[in-house]
Amino acid sequence: MGKKVFGEEELGNNVSSSPTNFPDPAVSNGNGKEKQFFSSDAIINLNQGDPTMFEAYWKEEEKSKIVIEGWQRMSYYSEDFAGKGINDNHICWFMLAEFEKEVRRIHHFVGNAVTADRYIVVGSGSMQLFQAALYAYALSFPIDAPDSPHPISVVCAAPYYSSYPAVTDYLKSGLYKWAGDAHSFKGKSKEPYIEVITSPNNPDGFTREAVVSNRHGDGAGKGLLIYDLAYYWPQYTAITAPFDHDIMLFTFSKSTGHAGSRIGWAVVKDREIAMKMIKFLELNTIGVSKDSQLRAAKIFKTITDNLGNENFFKYGRSIMAERWTRFRNVIKENGIFSLPEYPKQFCNFTGETTEGYPGFAWLKVKEEMEIDDGESLLKKHNILTRGGKYFGMDSRYVRVSMLDREETFNLFLERLSAINSSKK
Amino acid sequence: MGKKVFGEEELGNNVSSSPTNFPDPAVSNGNGKEKQFFSSDAIINLNQGDPTMFEAYWKEEEKSKIVIEGWQRMSYYSEDFAGKGINDNHICWFMLAEFEKEVRRIHHFVGNAVTADRYIVVGSGSMQLFQAALYAYALSFPIDAPDSPHPISVVCAAPYYSSYPAVTDYLKSGLYKWAGDAHSFKGKSKEPYIEVITSPNNPDGFTREAVVSNRHGDGAGKGLLIYDLAYYWPQYTAITAPFDHDIMLFTFSKSTGHAGSRIGWAVVKDREIAMKMIKFLELNTIGVSKDSQLRAAKIFKTITDNLGNENFFKYGRSIMAERWTRFRNVIKENGIFSLPEYPKQFCNFTGETTEGYPGFAWLKVKEEMEIDDGESLLKKHNILTRGGKYFGMDSRYVRVSMLDREETFNLFLERLSAINSSKK
Repeated sequence: MGKKVFGEEELGNNVSSSPTNFPDPAVSNGNGKEKQFFSSDAIINLNQGDPTMFEAYWKEEEKSKIVIEGWQRMSYYSEDFAGKGINDNHICWFMLAEFEKEVRRIHHFVGNAVTADRYIVVGSGSMQLFQAALYAYALSFPIDAPDSPHPISVVCAAPYYSSYPAVTDYLKSGLYKWAGDAHSFKGKSKEPYIEVITSPNNPDGFTREAVVSNRHGDGAGKGLLIYDLAYYWPQYTAITAPFDHDIMLFTFSKSTGHAGSRIGWAVVKDREIAMKMIKFLELNTIGVSKDSQLRAAKIFKTITDNLGNENFFKYGRSIMAERWTRFRNVIKENGIFSLPEYPKQFCNFTGETTEGYPGFAWLKVKEEMEIDDGESLLKKHNILTRGGKYFGMDSRYVRVSMLDREETFNLFLERLSAINSSKK
Repeated sequence: MGKKVFGEEELGNNVSSSPTNFPDPAVSNGNGKEKQFFSSDAIINLNQGDPTMFEAYWKEEEKSKIVIEGWQRMSYYSEDFAGKGINDNHICWFMLAEFEKEVRRIHHFVGNAVTADRYIVVGSGSMQLFQAALYAYALSFPIDAPDSPHPISVVCAAPYYSSYPAVTDYLKSGLYKWAGDAHSFKGKSKEPYIEVITSPNNPDGFTREAVVSNRHGDGAGKGLLIYDLAYYWPQYTAITAPFDHDIMLFTFSKSTGHAGSRIGWAVVKDREIAMKMIKFLELNTIGVSKDSQLRAAKIFKTITDNLGNENFFKYGRSIMAERWTRFRNVIKENGIFSLPEYPKQFCNFTGETTEGYPGFAWLKVKEEMEIDDGESLLKKHNILTRGGKYFGMDSRYVRVSMLDREETFNLFLERLSAINSSKK
């Protein structure tokens, strides 16, 4: 059954390229000797975007708790479907009615997406729905026919979220394959393709539009555009308009900080695509946890009803703004890295003009530094981050989570300042 | 984006073969006109094994409820791993410690599986773990090398659970492929393969052993054996020994009836296989709902602590025994179908000799009947079931869920009796 040591180097072509690193091997050394956090040589893991900074808010919101009795929601089906099945308005047979309702309400409340006359599909996080969308589009074409276009190319403009290539290729599907940077994608005329547009972008925080369809100048008719809008919420960016794309992905993790519940949702225009996505979710996990759907519904309701002392998104924005201000000061002082600047835009939700406060900082080691590996530099100082190569860029770049708990973030700034001091 | 009507017939080779049918197309006619249950022409859906019969028990168990505060378990990581990472004893970074503890306790309590010195891996239902096991074994061999054995054949003795072929092939993976009935599998010598052993078996309820390795007479050294033990619980069968196989799959759905939570777990001997399964779960859904893990832990604890008036498994056994007795009487009266007989065995858990009371009835239209399609016969009487062809058998066979709510089961028996009367 194989005696090799488990590690990425053995996993072969394509399948091996997963850089998602949960948990990071540098922390998980497998010998049982882990460094403890918050000691002087503690490791700070800012590799993932674990949104634990929002815990502090939810501790003050008692009405956000859920209670589930032992006998509730035991069926595979949501109550709407038990003994009835699909009809014109209901196609996602495992989705709770209250989840769907609260998803539509919070989008209306925030103004970031059009949901009227759109299908909502719940998933176990938005990356499961990303896979569902690849499957659904691939199945829009005849399988195993002489002119079948499979595997269909999946692209995203670099720098792109490091999980897209890994998640597209890990099963070596015959239906779709990762084809790299959308800027250099040379698809044949009329050949189907899938482009992911992440906006604001992970890792660099910029607002984005499609690259391939723009280049071809003929709209999105030949390809599927998947909009990953995980960070299109008021704490990270200005809400400039309700988006209305064919497929839009959102996640409980980044909207309110509840990563542990593994809930995402898609807003989908086309019924056939939505039906095939639901089929994927049936085959992949036979639906999605109803306990977590219930929790998401309750959290969203707490926000939309404004039951709390301060609206969650306004709270989130003030914390992110404060972190980014402190962070930019340290980066400026230390002089080693450069950081993107985000344009000021009017946010319809807050009614204020604001710059972007992304969930990740996208650092670049300045050209004049005699260092060409940002990740290694930070690792020497016990800060774990994710290097540029995982995002299709060079290793001067490095991505750092801005979403950890306050004590971790403070320690991170302390260490960044120390790098500065040691250089002087 | 395709104008075709969504339906299985269009989905092409292999990918099209999904018979899992959630919800059944016969119920889900897509035109919004559903027949209501419990009217005289109500449709009874016994196609899936939706274990709603156990709701009645859990309604009496107030201590089985869970409460989750808005700020709890927000991280991707379980608390054991936050800032620590993998060590010798902990490798499943998204698994709650209380879930793992209660899984080990309930296996010890029931005596159906050895868990000491074994890894527990939590999944979003056991079918996600089935896919994780395929991936893990496939990655034990070099990928894309000249002598790579991929795609690796996956087999199961017919009649086999209808989801295995669908779930193995829906993504047309280059790592593994469905190869049909294990009895007719002709793998080359030393060629790796995967055999699934479902015991008690879905659909026919019999206890099983491996077929391929027995035939080759050289043990399991050349193949991976996955034991799907979803129904190896005292309400369905005699617990004859704690099983101790390389990979054993269990599910919250069938053990206690909580299908809606999408929780399963694997008991795994080999650390490298367990690590690769965890990698699959990371790439597929970035872990598993912590809300549902918490719920499963609480339900298991309620059973193991024996907080209730009557132990859940003894209750379940008595209900199943009663249903099977009534069912066998109706089948005998009506004379159309034959049913398997299960040998009496001593159950270590109950301390009694007992026959099997499977979660599904595996009916066969008798040879002397001028009917060769069991599913169609029952459908005429508004009873939805799953025909033999989905399980690798002929269409005289039909699988019927025995796990629905009491009112549905009663109506089912009524209709079966009516078929009898109309024949007389």
